[in-house]
Amino acid sequence: MLAEIICIGDELLIGQTINTNAAWLGDALNRSGIQVQRVHTISDDPQAILSMVDECLLRSQVVVMTGGLGPTKDDLTKHTLCDYFGSHLVMNNEALERIESFMRVRQLPILEVNRQQAALPHNCRVIQNYKGTACGMWFEKNGHVLVSMPGVPYEMQAMMSEEVIPSLQSKFALPHITHRTLLTMGVGESFLAEQIADWENSLAAADIKLAYLPSPGSVKLRMSHYGGGDSAAVAEHFARKESELRQLIGDCIYGQENDTIAGVVGQLLRDRNLTLATAESCTGGHVGHLLTSIPGSSAYYKGGMITYTNAIKTAQLGVPEEEIAQFGVVSNEIATAMAQQIRKKFSADFGIGITGIAGPDGGSEATPVGTVCISVSSSYGEFVKKEVLGRSRERTIQVASHFALNYLRKEILRTDAC
Amino acid sequence: MLAEIICIGDELLIGQTINTNAAWLGDALNRSGIQVQRVHTISDDPQAILSMVDECLLRSQVVVMTGGLGPTKDDLTKHTLCDYFGSHLVMNNEALERIESFMRVRQLPILEVNRQQAALPHNCRVIQNYKGTACGMWFEKNGHVLVSMPGVPYEMQAMMSEEVIPSLQSKFALPHITHRTLLTMGVGESFLAEQIADWENSLAAADIKLAYLPSPGSVKLRMSHYGGGDSAAVAEHFARKESELRQLIGDCIYGQENDTIAGVVGQLLRDRNLTLATAESCTGGHVGHLLTSIPGSSAYYKGGMITYTNAIKTAQLGVPEEEIAQFGVVSNEIATAMAQQIRKKFSADFGIGITGIAGPDGGSEATPVGTVCISVSSSYGEFVKKEVLGRSRERTIQVASHFALNYLRKEILRTDAC
Repeated sequence: MLAEIICIGDELLIGQTINTNAAWLGDALNRSGIQVQRVHTISDDPQAILSMVDECLLRSQVVVMTGGLGPTKDDLTKHTLCDYFGSHLVMNNEALERIESFMRVRQLPILEVNRQQAALPHNCRVIQNYKGTACGMWFEKNGHVLVSMPGVPYEMQAMMSEEVIPSLQSKFALPHITHRTLLTMGVGESFLAEQIADWENSLAAADIKLAYLPSPGSVKLRMSHYGGGDSAAVAEHFARKESELRQLIGDCIYGQENDTIAGVVGQLLRDRNLTLATAESCTGGHVGHLLTSIPGSSAYYKGGMITYTNAIKTAQLGVPEEEIAQFGVVSNEIATAMAQQIRKKFSADFGIGITGIAGPDGGSEATPVGTVCISVSSSYGEFVKKEVLGRSRERTIQVASHFALNYLRKEILRTDAC
Repeated sequence: MLAEIICIGDELLIGQTINTNAAWLGDALNRSGIQVQRVHTISDDPQAILSMVDECLLRSQVVVMTGGLGPTKDDLTKHTLCDYFGSHLVMNNEALERIESFMRVRQLPILEVNRQQAALPHNCRVIQNYKGTACGMWFEKNGHVLVSMPGVPYEMQAMMSEEVIPSLQSKFALPHITHRTLLTMGVGESFLAEQIADWENSLAAADIKLAYLPSPGSVKLRMSHYGGGDSAAVAEHFARKESELRQLIGDCIYGQENDTIAGVVGQLLRDRNLTLATAESCTGGHVGHLLTSIPGSSAYYKGGMITYTNAIKTAQLGVPEEEIAQFGVVSNEIATAMAQQIRKKFSADFGIGITGIAGPDGGSEATPVGTVCISVSSSYGEFVKKEVLGRSRERTIQVASHFALNYLRKEILRTDAC
């Protein structure tokens, strides 16, 4: 079952708005066993809409459109679809009552443009909008379906979840699409590919495709099976392949599906009733930000210090001045001292210490820009690692922060065994 | 001059990744006078790529592609373009040297898959990638241009800004488009629109269009002139309109073009040889992260504390326990005490204190979720403000952090006059 998505709006084309609807729809359709083969963004222009609709309906059994259904003059989608499907507009009383009540509740006057939103093509199935004023429309042509919905994300999402997806599922006998995503950190895409080359080659026999989805410091591995065959067998293949993969590279897998490293670490701390404090230099508070982006993080994150100068490292955190002089501020020794000190000062079970040179200035031959030393301290001892993360300041901050949380994850698991 | 964008990647189609490249490219092309008429997302599949490339090159003079250029087996774009343009791969020595040096600097071994990334179609112009390993490719066919770039945002953005946009401008002699963007904070979009309605109406006479670009806590105002006419007159119109706007709403304009509030504040501090320290509770280090995202911020940012628990606020920052009991931890009094204490402890000229409830839990009737108190302290006294920023945790952290820096900006300017 193939689908296409058409998003209408100049604000998308000029980059004023990021197209989050396409991602939401792609995910929703995919999970329902409908494979999105193309996504298109076009202008709210009758010619562009007509040609795109025609093209997509020939190629795909399901076409989902968003946008262009507002009450203003530049919203032309409804009239264009009316032309395309040989319709005329008729007043939909249910929609009219809903729109009038919607405006009444908000103490807004009911304008003629709002009323006109209840005039809908006579040969479509109307999808009521319980969160806004623009109705959705379900058309069929040669057994193919076109659904048009407003572009407001929460209006569109409600219509999809409550009416469109269930209707598509019942109309078509959908194959069961299976995905499994495992999240890795600490090994680059090409090294990972080399490490798992034989395993990757073995996926074809089970009709599973693999995708590498890299982001700074992390690579997601997604296995996909596009339906057909016995679903119990597919589930078994997935389980076996995942287990094989975990045997190969298990210690760099930090999570699955929509996990984040901060969420994973938070859950590990919460489960063990442990606490954490951070001492950040070059990451400047980003580790704290990642941790506190997770709701409920106050249960395990006590806080930390951003020690951006040597004087503050000494005066506030208590890192001895002579150690900084002896080892240099970007050194494993100072990262370790920072992790130890913040753990003690904040009475936490784990301490993270990070010192480095984010750049673009300040590097030397011995300690180039991008050098970062990260330490994790606990009562079981210290872990520390020095790495060179490259010349982009933003990327170094991102990657170092994620690596720090991943080292913490490994230390929590290591101390489990102590 | 019409363009289309093709983004390649299954992660986009299934909604695992939101397509931010399309928005960035739409904006970049639009600013250069190239109108994006369609954006397509397709699978990394040779047939899909071939048919889409062919279709777009017939319809548009410029086709910009991203994605599918990684070193792994699921990256098929280069070979597919090679087929389409009747090419064969030849080793590009500059690219090979760059890739080898890229891996060497990172102390990584050079794998054959990396080396193969330097094998490129013989009949394309190679666009070197100074931030990663996958080169870009510039092809021409019947006077139309197709550019293929990697999907990693910062790699693609550098290639576009440094090579692709300037090359398109010179190849197609593009009209001179003028933009001027002013950045405001603290006033909502509709309120702003009302305040500047007369001024906005006056723009038409100078053939200037206005766009409102809202983001959490901030609204960008962009004036655009789409070419034609005397360029000296256009420049004069822009200068006069900008000056009029600054007279109307000057104190909420914090910057222009690509400024960030952290960069603006940093420059103000640097120019005055002043220093800053931060005490963050609900923002959890995000203010520190924004400040330290600016290269050279160590010249004025001393660091701070993330005091995520009451105990840490008292023990480490020195906020009296009885004040927390008396006023509640989310109060103007505690925000002020935090700002004062961090300024003194870190011997800084300015201190920022932030305390609030990011949610989703923890609110009360008197102090609902989203309540944030922000204070700025200096030797000239304290500024403090309490606001309710809504129910989204992520948005509250973002907006509170930006507002804190904007209050600091105003305090720096206020103390100039003291």
